[in-house]
Amino acid sequence: MHLAYTQQLADLAHTVGQMAALAGSAMDQATRALLEADLFGAEEVISSYDTMTELSQRAEEKAFALLALRAPVAGDARQVIAGIKITADVERMGKLALHVARIARRRHPEHAVPIDVRPQFAEMGRIAVALACAVRELLESRDRFRAGRLDCEDEAMDELHRRLFTALMDQNWTHEIQAAVDVTLLSRFYERFADHAVAIDSHVALFFTGASRADRGRRLRH
Amino acid sequence: MHLAYTQQLADLAHTVGQMAALAGSAMDQATRALLEADLFGAEEVISSYDTMTELSQRAEEKAFALLALRAPVAGDARQVIAGIKITADVERMGKLALHVARIARRRHPEHAVPIDVRPQFAEMGRIAVALACAVRELLESRDRFRAGRLDCEDEAMDELHRRLFTALMDQNWTHEIQAAVDVTLLSRFYERFADHAVAIDSHVALFFTGASRADRGRRLRH
Repeated sequence: MHLAYTQQLADLAHTVGQMAALAGSAMDQATRALLEADLFGAEEVISSYDTMTELSQRAEEKAFALLALRAPVAGDARQVIAGIKITADVERMGKLALHVARIARRRHPEHAVPIDVRPQFAEMGRIAVALACAVRELLESRDRFRAGRLDCEDEAMDELHRRLFTALMDQNWTHEIQAAVDVTLLSRFYERFADHAVAIDSHVALFFTGASRADRGRRLRH
Repeated sequence: MHLAYTQQLADLAHTVGQMAALAGSAMDQATRALLEADLFGAEEVISSYDTMTELSQRAEEKAFALLALRAPVAGDARQVIAGIKITADVERMGKLALHVARIARRRHPEHAVPIDVRPQFAEMGRIAVALACAVRELLESRDRFRAGRLDCEDEAMDELHRRLFTALMDQNWTHEIQAAVDVTLLSRFYERFADHAVAIDSHVALFFTGASRADRGRRLRH
């Protein structure tokens, strides 16, 4: 690969890695704002979203520059397009953190989440932050061995999501409808956050090599 | 523009238009399955999603072929990338129809949606189908004048979404928590369906011309 191309690809990966770090810290702060009914924290997450939009635009410009730098060899184009998809996924993770913060702000000074399900949300927040961190490392270090870690965390998130829904349907759920609505949406936001991290994991091999994991699997089989 | 390029771009638009038609008919059938607790209809929507995945892969291959056909002139690359984004949005619309159908199936033979909010969901379904239809026309006819129509329908969808949430919070909401959870998720699915249609609307000028609406506005002002 041409050196300038390789460097610019690493530069794009770095920008998207920054976005992942931002999504992770936003989800961390949004979760604390949610659990502590912290208006100031929620506001901070909401206003930090502008930085995410800026980084996303910068990443797209870098992707366009990459396309212009090289002849459109099939592999190269696929790399860049994988980069654009990853950018969109990370931006969406940031948006989901924003949604969590907005619910925290809307219910302030009340807590959006009843005390008995707060431990589940604390755990969902922890997993979300770990996933964003893993995505960043994946992008910054090209460390393919982290893939398994993402799947594992994603399964833990799905399990929490299911358990929350079971708790909601339980006869012992004595809270207001409003709390049920908030818990439903919040749980979905965390679950989607994890889905996007897993989607990034599935694109990242293509991004760095121009060949997907499936392609490489095929090559090994033949 | 080169003739082969123009034809292949139109061909890509046609495939994505087919996807939009499929998303629209899936949402139509999913809404009916939801309102009539129709298991057979729900199953049909769920199994038709495979076709959506196939069409999406075909659209991506066409986009890659377009990138290979032309030198990576900035405008061309932007067109193709807009095409890929539109494809992702339409595929997601299909996925949301699938989610609606899954809730209908899960609650069968019961109705997921209480009788007093069914008219709102019928209306949300109608708007979703109109939006998918408008997206298809946008892609097939390049008719930019439909843009306003999409915004208008999207606002109507947002208004229904807000009204449903108000109804949920109302003291007169006497249904089970399960119904509240289902209504919350379903309402969100319809709202997101409309969001993706609006996102497509914002990409379509770039897709057909290589210049965004904002670019063209800038050019007019200077």
